[in-house]
Amino acid sequence: MAIQVGIIMGSDSDLPVMEPAAAVLKELGIEYEITVVSAHRTPLRMIHYAEKAKERGLKVIIAGAGGAAHLPGMIASVTTLPVIGVPVKSSNSIDGWDSVLSILQMPNGVPVATVALNAAKNAGILAAQIIGASDEATHKKIANYKKALEDEVLLKVGRLKDAGQPNEFDD
Amino acid sequence: MAIQVGIIMGSDSDLPVMEPAAAVLKELGIEYEITVVSAHRTPLRMIHYAEKAKERGLKVIIAGAGGAAHLPGMIASVTTLPVIGVPVKSSNSIDGWDSVLSILQMPNGVPVATVALNAAKNAGILAAQIIGASDEATHKKIANYKKALEDEVLLKVGRLKDAGQPNEFDD
Amino acid sequence: MAIQVGIIMGSDSDLPVMEPAAAVLKELGIEYEITVVSAHRTPLRMIHYAEKAKERGLKVIIAGAGGAAHLPGMIASVTTLPVIGVPVKSSNSIDGWDSVLSILQMPNGVPVATVALNAAKNAGILAAQIIGASDEATHKKIANYKKALEDEVLLKVGRLKDAGQPNEFDD
Amino acid sequence: MAIQVGIIMGSDSDLPVMEPAAAVLKELGIEYEITVVSAHRTPLRMIHYAEKAKERGLKVIIAGAGGAAHLPGMIASVTTLPVIGVPVKSSNSIDGWDSVLSILQMPNGVPVATVALNAAKNAGILAAQIIGASDEATHKKIANYKKALEDEVLLKVGRLKDAGQPNEFDD
Amino acid sequence: MAIQVGIIMGSDSDLPVMEPAAAVLKELGIEYEITVVSAHRTPLRMIHYAEKAKERGLKVIIAGAGGAAHLPGMIASVTTLPVIGVPVKSSNSIDGWDSVLSILQMPNGVPVATVALNAAKNAGILAAQIIGASDEATHKKIANYKKALEDEVLLKVGRLKDAGQPNEFDD
Amino acid sequence: MAIQVGIIMGSDSDLPVMEPAAAVLKELGIEYEITVVSAHRTPLRMIHYAEKAKERGLKVIIAGAGGAAHLPGMIASVTTLPVIGVPVKSSNSIDGWDSVLSILQMPNGVPVATVALNAAKNAGILAAQIIGASDEATHKKIANYKKALEDEVLLKVGRLKDAGQPNEFDD
Amino acid sequence: MAIQVGIIMGSDSDLPVMEPAAAVLKELGIEYEITVVSAHRTPLRMIHYAEKAKERGLKVIIAGAGGAAHLPGMIASVTTLPVIGVPVKSSNSIDGWDSVLSILQMPNGVPVATVALNAAKNAGILAAQIIGASDEATHKKIANYKKALEDEVLLKVGRLKDAGQPNEFDD
Amino acid sequence: MAIQVGIIMGSDSDLPVMEPAAAVLKELGIEYEITVVSAHRTPLRMIHYAEKAKERGLKVIIAGAGGAAHLPGMIASVTTLPVIGVPVKSSNSIDGWDSVLSILQMPNGVPVATVALNAAKNAGILAAQIIGASDEATHKKIANYKKALEDEVLLKVGRLKDAGQPNEFDD
Repeated sequence: MAIQVGIIMGSDSDLPVMEPAAAVLKELGIEYEITVVSAHRTPLRMIHYAEKAKERGLKVIIAGAGGAAHLPGMIASVTTLPVIGVPVKSSNSIDGWDSVLSILQMPNGVPVATVALNAAKNAGILAAQIIGASDEATHKKIANYKKALEDEVLLKVGRLKDAGQPNEFDD
Repeated sequence: MAIQVGIIMGSDSDLPVMEPAAAVLKELGIEYEITVVSAHRTPLRMIHYAEKAKERGLKVIIAGAGGAAHLPGMIASVTTLPVIGVPVKSSNSIDGWDSVLSILQMPNGVPVATVALNAAKNAGILAAQIIGASDEATHKKIANYKKALEDEVLLKVGRLKDAGQPNEFDD
Repeated sequence: MAIQVGIIMGSDSDLPVMEPAAAVLKELGIEYEITVVSAHRTPLRMIHYAEKAKERGLKVIIAGAGGAAHLPGMIASVTTLPVIGVPVKSSNSIDGWDSVLSILQMPNGVPVATVALNAAKNAGILAAQIIGASDEATHKKIANYKKALEDEVLLKVGRLKDAGQPNEFDD
Repeated sequence: MAIQVGIIMGSDSDLPVMEPAAAVLKELGIEYEITVVSAHRTPLRMIHYAEKAKERGLKVIIAGAGGAAHLPGMIASVTTLPVIGVPVKSSNSIDGWDSVLSILQMPNGVPVATVALNAAKNAGILAAQIIGASDEATHKKIANYKKALEDEVLLKVGRLKDAGQPNEFDD
Repeated sequence: MAIQVGIIMGSDSDLPVMEPAAAVLKELGIEYEITVVSAHRTPLRMIHYAEKAKERGLKVIIAGAGGAAHLPGMIASVTTLPVIGVPVKSSNSIDGWDSVLSILQMPNGVPVATVALNAAKNAGILAAQIIGASDEATHKKIANYKKALEDEVLLKVGRLKDAGQPNEFDD
Repeated sequence: MAIQVGIIMGSDSDLPVMEPAAAVLKELGIEYEITVVSAHRTPLRMIHYAEKAKERGLKVIIAGAGGAAHLPGMIASVTTLPVIGVPVKSSNSIDGWDSVLSILQMPNGVPVATVALNAAKNAGILAAQIIGASDEATHKKIANYKKALEDEVLLKVGRLKDAGQPNEFDD
Repeated sequence: MAIQVGIIMGSDSDLPVMEPAAAVLKELGIEYEITVVSAHRTPLRMIHYAEKAKERGLKVIIAGAGGAAHLPGMIASVTTLPVIGVPVKSSNSIDGWDSVLSILQMPNGVPVATVALNAAKNAGILAAQIIGASDEATHKKIANYKKALEDEVLLKVGRLKDAGQPNEFDD
Repeated sequence: MAIQVGIIMGSDSDLPVMEPAAAVLKELGIEYEITVVSAHRTPLRMIHYAEKAKERGLKVIIAGAGGAAHLPGMIASVTTLPVIGVPVKSSNSIDGWDSVLSILQMPNGVPVATVALNAAKNAGILAAQIIGASDEATHKKIANYKKALEDEVLLKVGRLKDAGQPNEFDD
């Protein structure tokens, strides 16, 4: 099967934050690639990555970056594909506000689908949802994934009760 | 053609902010619907909207809300479709921070594709990009749209020069 | 005696933060239950919890959640009971601002009685005060509780003086 | 009928912000009083107001204040009644953050039930909910009030459709 | 000699933060007292402390508090003496913003001389400067203290140079 | 009588904000001067102003500035007198945060007595309180001033009642 | 004379904010050009502008942008020239924080010399100072410019005194 | 060769943050000096440093400071040289916002070229770029430095692929 999602990040120091995006895509059976593309250190590589993404068969790009995070927005300026931005809370970040605002506040015409600070896992799920919007098999996997999330909570409900916490609500 | 994008908002006072989403979808030839669904005043209507969205044929939902903006996240908790959140800067908002953070900072498992404050136009474009990821006709329209944005800038470059502003850069 | 206060939280990882609410209710002799209800992972369980709360005899609901914290506000949208919201500072929270604003900034018609960040103990006391507003026995216990707080400070005043810190104020 | 809710504010310049609390209590048939009590200009009057509130028959106190807003917290330090705090965005406020944080971030033992910036209407509804927790007649009025909020939204849904906005969702 | 400066704090957990105020006053030969006065747990003790401060011979009051920090402002509302407020960054504080704004943003008529977050040492120096404004002996000590600060920097300049750091500036 | 308080500001555009400091000092019978001293445009004039302040008989200096507000802190670095800083919300200020933090967050050894944003009136009152700490005549005037503030509130209480607002509290 | 400073901005709507950069360069006798280069709408034009800047003879580039402001940082990623960034407070900006942080918080290796919000005039002066660091004629003009700023303040000092404001300081 | 860049800081506790500026200048073959100059503890030394900088042959000054960081702006007020400001996140800083805003938000006429929080390395590179704007040898070294940054990223790309991460993009 062809690679459908490109996961890129500004530096390999962002890998621990970004790997959950890959993990959840794997879990949902979606092919991905993951590499380093730096807006500030390899601007031409970045332009090329964005220019070729569509013809290479990608459907969605996930881009993570910290600080003055320009990678997601610059990728979005070149490609016509949907771009998901993951604000990374790097060291020397001002509490993460810098990466959040640098990714979120894009001008008219060039949206970036921003997820929560460090939320690479959610970026992966959103990429799957985007693919699933036109692909029933993927959509079904997402539905199962959501069901599993619910079951996990109900399990915790039971465990809390078993541990002796009072609870009379019986849903 | 069937409706592909549902645009919903917490109150009809958000209509002026949300209408650009509809306008850009119209421009790109994508069918949409637009209605009021309040997380806080009509919670069951909200649940039903999200539950039926997929079977009604929607591919993407755009949800706009202000203040403690729960609509996008709650819709995302029920549906398996990708949900785009538009933070609306309502009166008595604390500078828009409340709606931005209430929409962006979703927990693992339930992403919302957040766009900039009041950026309904970008929400519309992002919805089109999501549809275009699997639909060549839509994709082509987006490519043209982006080209037009570029042309518009180049026009402004010329106008600035014509107005006598010095500029020797000839791209 | 019947359960009067329902304590719910979005995830069992919030239990260490929320337990002081239970502890202070126990201390004040008020029956409570404590369970997990997730706005984003179990939206229907959440709706049912809120719908049945009044008929089940609850008088107050305490809801704790972090990040884009929708649980307190969504519970408040369904029930007619007073809802107390506890903003939880979860990991990846943006300094707690996200949960504070997501709970506090509710729209007209659907208030949430918000307490300080992580202040589950105060949520428990507030629940007791709400019950005590119409129940003399509970009210008396709160009066004693407040008196004990004062005594504790006066004890510290003495201890500081005994430790040799100069102080000539004799209240 | 006796006065059940005391509405106080730091200055009569806060009256326009605080009046909706009175209006909604009137609408819900709950007796209230409204006066000026300044933490900083009349500290003793403030202490006396809080000391006598319970014996005067009040069940809830709503206190609004701006800037370094000490009124709600100081009232709560003296009375055993539940206190609802309304952060007022006064001139020279730093975007309302000062009043929000001064009211919300109370220490253990002394909660203030904080509502949104300028949300005096919600303070009134919350006061009614607190009274309604033990009073069926009031509770029924709140249930009706909430139903009316929902009906109002549905009306808007219809009006939007009548105005020609496309919408195929039929709840 | 009589006590000239009263140092008070909301809780003895603030003692490590507040002790440098005492230390610097001792160093400058100014008599002080240090005790716990809680705005929220001992409101009457607080009122009495402020009421009697002037007649007890105090010239300045230093008040430290965290979170929704009401102690400095409430003391200032009762006494006619200058009050110095020290915002304390307590646990569960929202980055210290709550205590800073609760102390700084006082309304017209009731100033609090606010110093930096946790800056009890500076509060002590400011108290000394206030006393020194009308007392030559104290003033001279402050002048010496400032001179010592300068000498300490010049010493560091020398040490840096000795450690081999290049520097050709010879003041 | 000699001038006791120097009021300085970074620019004459700050005059409307700073004049209430002069007005309240006049009302309290304290001699003052008011002039422009710019930290950034006239650094030497600033140094000289601070150096000569004590020998010229000043007891307190009030310094107002906006944006990266360095005037209060730099004056405090040179003089041994107490310095009161007034953060001015200038145009292009980032909501006043810049001037507040630039004045408040002074390092150990060099305090600035910071008042609220634009609170020049409170700066004047604080200057009077500092003088009044050692001067009975001034102290008495401050006591009267505070009494007048209280009377004004009580007048408003009466007016509100006369206007028909319900109020049964009789202090 | 050759153009030494390139002034670029993301949109011609930024022209009113950016023109003071041009004006002050003109005043200081430095040749400049001014044009529109959009990071998000004309990414290739942006790359080319940066690539050719040095060979075209530019010594400094001033780039202004609002929201998620990527222009200054992206220009800096391509060119070896010093880049001055002007954060522009555009409509829908979140109080200017977005543009400030997007420009300021650049990663190691790619600095942007950031000036204050909307401070295009200062960007122009800084560009002149950079040129003046190696060019005596320009340096002298800057020295005169600074002298004029000082004289202007002294003029205001006199005017304030003439208007009757008390002031005995004679520098 | 003569010293071209002066690196100064408010306290030797800032040395670990500021040393990367020296290191990168060394790497680029630019002579520098590094010393302590405190705006608040040695104001006259600061004035002298700025006054003599140009005649001593300096081309750029790098000034680092934390909290209410006045050093960069005050140096800029006296010298005609370009001044680079490094906001230092000191202990008791309010998340670094204080130093960022105190350095960035300079008034018209007195720019400071501000770099990211703690970004002394970037300050060094910017200083080199400023010198390189008129000096080909330095400019060439910067070009090489930038090339090395790019190579380092490409190396990481290869290493990631070698470690088995899927990636089909071949730039």
